[in-house]
Amino acid sequence: MSIFLTTVPVEEAIRVVRHITPSPPEEVVPLESAFRRILSRDVFADIDIPGFTRSVVDGYAVRSADTTGAGEAIPVILRLAGRSAMGASEKPEKMTPGSCVYVPTGGEIPDGADAMAMIEYCEVIGEDVLVKRPLAAGENIIFRGEDFRAGERVLEAGRRLSPGDMGILAATGHNMVFVSAVPKIGIISTGNELVPVEEVPTGSRVRDVNTYLCRAFLEQYGALPVQFGIVRDDPAVFEKTLDNALATCDAVLISGGSSKDERDLTAGMIQSRGEVFVHGISLAPGKPTIIGLAKGKPVIGLPGHPASTFIVLMVIARHMVLGMTGNASERPVVVKGILSENIPSAKGREEYVRVRVTGNRVVPLFGKSGLLNTLVRSDGVLKIPAGSEGIETGTEVEVILW
Amino acid sequence: MSIFLTTVPVEEAIRVVRHITPSPPEEVVPLESAFRRILSRDVFADIDIPGFTRSVVDGYAVRSADTTGAGEAIPVILRLAGRSAMGASEKPEKMTPGSCVYVPTGGEIPDGADAMAMIEYCEVIGEDVLVKRPLAAGENIIFRGEDFRAGERVLEAGRRLSPGDMGILAATGHNMVFVSAVPKIGIISTGNELVPVEEVPTGSRVRDVNTYLCRAFLEQYGALPVQFGIVRDDPAVFEKTLDNALATCDAVLISGGSSKDERDLTAGMIQSRGEVFVHGISLAPGKPTIIGLAKGKPVIGLPGHPASTFIVLMVIARHMVLGMTGNASERPVVVKGILSENIPSAKGREEYVRVRVTGNRVVPLFGKSGLLNTLVRSDGVLKIPAGSEGIETGTEVEVILW
Repeated sequence: MSIFLTTVPVEEAIRVVRHITPSPPEEVVPLESAFRRILSRDVFADIDIPGFTRSVVDGYAVRSADTTGAGEAIPVILRLAGRSAMGASEKPEKMTPGSCVYVPTGGEIPDGADAMAMIEYCEVIGEDVLVKRPLAAGENIIFRGEDFRAGERVLEAGRRLSPGDMGILAATGHNMVFVSAVPKIGIISTGNELVPVEEVPTGSRVRDVNTYLCRAFLEQYGALPVQFGIVRDDPAVFEKTLDNALATCDAVLISGGSSKDERDLTAGMIQSRGEVFVHGISLAPGKPTIIGLAKGKPVIGLPGHPASTFIVLMVIARHMVLGMTGNASERPVVVKGILSENIPSAKGREEYVRVRVTGNRVVPLFGKSGLLNTLVRSDGVLKIPAGSEGIETGTEVEVILW
Repeated sequence: MSIFLTTVPVEEAIRVVRHITPSPPEEVVPLESAFRRILSRDVFADIDIPGFTRSVVDGYAVRSADTTGAGEAIPVILRLAGRSAMGASEKPEKMTPGSCVYVPTGGEIPDGADAMAMIEYCEVIGEDVLVKRPLAAGENIIFRGEDFRAGERVLEAGRRLSPGDMGILAATGHNMVFVSAVPKIGIISTGNELVPVEEVPTGSRVRDVNTYLCRAFLEQYGALPVQFGIVRDDPAVFEKTLDNALATCDAVLISGGSSKDERDLTAGMIQSRGEVFVHGISLAPGKPTIIGLAKGKPVIGLPGHPASTFIVLMVIARHMVLGMTGNASERPVVVKGILSENIPSAKGREEYVRVRVTGNRVVPLFGKSGLLNTLVRSDGVLKIPAGSEGIETGTEVEVILW
C-alpha cells in the first residue's frame, strides 16, 4: 500500500458503507420495552379512533339547530334528558329535539346531538339547562374515526419509537411490537500508546478515550457495544482479538491506528479476511478512515485521535449503525444561525468545523483538529462542502447539532 | 371545590413544581454505565492533556527557524536524527539544530523542536530529509496541557452525559463516575372508560394510552417508570393504589380524571395526604392539571386525553423530572421557521399548537385538541404567550422540537 492515501469523497464513502451494511432481523417485544426501538413493520389501526363520537369538554350535548340565536340575555332553554356515563359499555339513548344530555370530557355524544355546549356557558335550573351561546354543528366534539380509521397505517417501518409513537401503539392495540433486533458491534482500541482509563499515562502514553466515545455513540443510536479492550502493537494479539470480535459481533469498529504503520496493519488485517473498499476519505478531520468487509462483516477503521474519531462516527459510521438497526427515519437536528467569523477552507475535501451556538450566533471553535475540549465546548458541527473555499462572517449557516 | 378551576399561569405552576421537587441522592457507577446519566459533581482533569507536546500529523519534528525560506525549488536539508516511538515510556532525546526527528501522528515532539513538517512536503534521501515548505513555530503540534490543564474543571455537575462527555471522562481518568440516582416515578391511570391495550374497547371505552406516554417520557428524561395499571371509578382501589405508589416511588403521575368528578377525586386524594397547590393551569391544552404533595412526595394529576397529557408532560412535569434527576443542563431544542398560516389565540392563557416543520416552513396542525394523530404528524410545538392574540402568517417563529 502506498504512503499517501487514495481518498474518496464523503458521499462515496457513505455509499460504500450503506452497500456493505446488512439489514437487521426482527423480533417481537412487549410495548413496555419498545421505547426507542426501531419498528420493523408498518403499524395499522385495528379500530376506529375514537371508537365513538366523543366530547372534548364538560357540558351538554345539544342539537346545534336548537341553539340558533342563543345569547347571554336570551338563552335557549333545553330539557335535561340525562347524563352520558364515562366508559359505558352501551350507546346512550338517542336524544330528542329540544333536549340536552350532560356529557363529561371524553364521554359519548348521543345520536341526535351534533355539538357540545361548554358547562361555562350553561346554567342549570331544575330540569332545564339554559344555553347562552349558539353552537355550530360539530363544535367541541370529535367524530368516530376522526383521529384514525380502522385499517389506516399509523406508523411506518423504520421509525425509531418516540413517546408519541408509544401512545399511538397503545391506542391501536399493539401490546407486542415488531422491532429490529439490536445489532452487536465490537469495539477494538489499537495503539501502542494506549493505557486504560484507570492508569495515569507516563511518557507519550495516553488514555483510551475512543472506546468510550464509540460505546456511547453506539448506545445513542440503539446498537449494543461490545468492548474488546486495548490492543497494543502486537499483530498476533490484534489478529486474535479481531477474529474474536468478528465471531461474536455483527460489525466491528477499530479505533486507532493513527500512525501510517498502524493504519496499514489494520487495513492488512481486514484485507486478509475480506476486502478493503475505502482507505482514506476527503474529510477533515477524519481522513485516515478505513472501510471494509472482514469475514462478511462490516469493519470501520477510525482515526486515532478522539476529536477526529467523533467526526467519523457522526459522518460515516452513523450510516452503518442506522442501516444495521433498520433506522430509516433518523435525521440530524439542524439549526440555523449567523456565522460570527470567517472560516477558511482548503478546497477539495469536506470539512467539519466544530461550532458553538449562542442564540442566533454560530461561533467556530478553531484550534487544532486534535483538541478534545472542543467536544464539550461545541454544540455541533458546520459542514463546509468539498468545493468551497470557506464561509464568510455574517453568512447564514446550518449547524448539525450533536 | 368549585366547578370552575382557579387557574394559575404556566410560570407559576413551574415555580411550584420546582419548589416541591426534591434533589436526588448520588451514587457511583462505572464509566461503562454512565452514558446519559446525570453528573452529580463537577469533574476535574487529573493530568495535563495532552501529557506531552505531540504531533497532529505524520512527519518530521523540526526547529521552525531551520526552515525559513524553504520551498519546492530550494528545500532545506536536515539530518534525520531518529524516530519518536509511539507510546514510549520515556521522553525522546533533545534535538539539535539542523536535524529532524520522524514523529507519527500522536507521537511526542522532542525538546528542541517546535513544529512538524508534514510527510507530504518532505523527501528522504539517505540520512537527509529535504523540507520543501517553511514552518511557523507551533505548526502541526499540540502543546502539553493545551487541551486541559491538570486541576481544571472539565465538566459541570448537572450535565447529562453525552458521547463527547464520556470521552472527556475517559481522558481525565474517571473510570468511576458520581451521578444522580435514578428516581422511581409511579404511573397510575384513572378513568372508568379505560381498558388495557390488549383489549378491544366497546361502547364508550378507550384504551389506556397515557401509561405508555408517561413511561416513555420518563425514560426519555432518565427516570425509572413504575406502572400501577388502570384504576377505574373505585375510590377505595384508587386510594390503595396511590398509597402503594407513594410508598414505593419518589413521585407519582396520575393520568386521567378527565371529567370534573374524577379530577375532584384525584385532588381530594392528594389533599387528604398532603396539599394541593395548583388545580388548573392557564394552558391550552392542559388546563385541568393538578400539582400537589402527598405524604411528602410530588404528585402531578394529568388531563385524561393523551394529546393534552403530552403537552402537560413536556411543559410542566418535565421540570419535576429534571429536578429529581439532578439535570441542570437540558434545554429544549428550538428551531426557527416561517409560519404558513394565521394562528388565532384566546388571550389570557399560554397555548401550545402542534406544528410540522418542513424545511423553513412551520405548518400548524389545527384540529381539535383531542386528536392523537397530531402526536405523530407533528415535529414539535409552537408556544403562544398568554398575552398574545395569535400569530400571523409569515412571522418568524420558534418551534420547540419534541
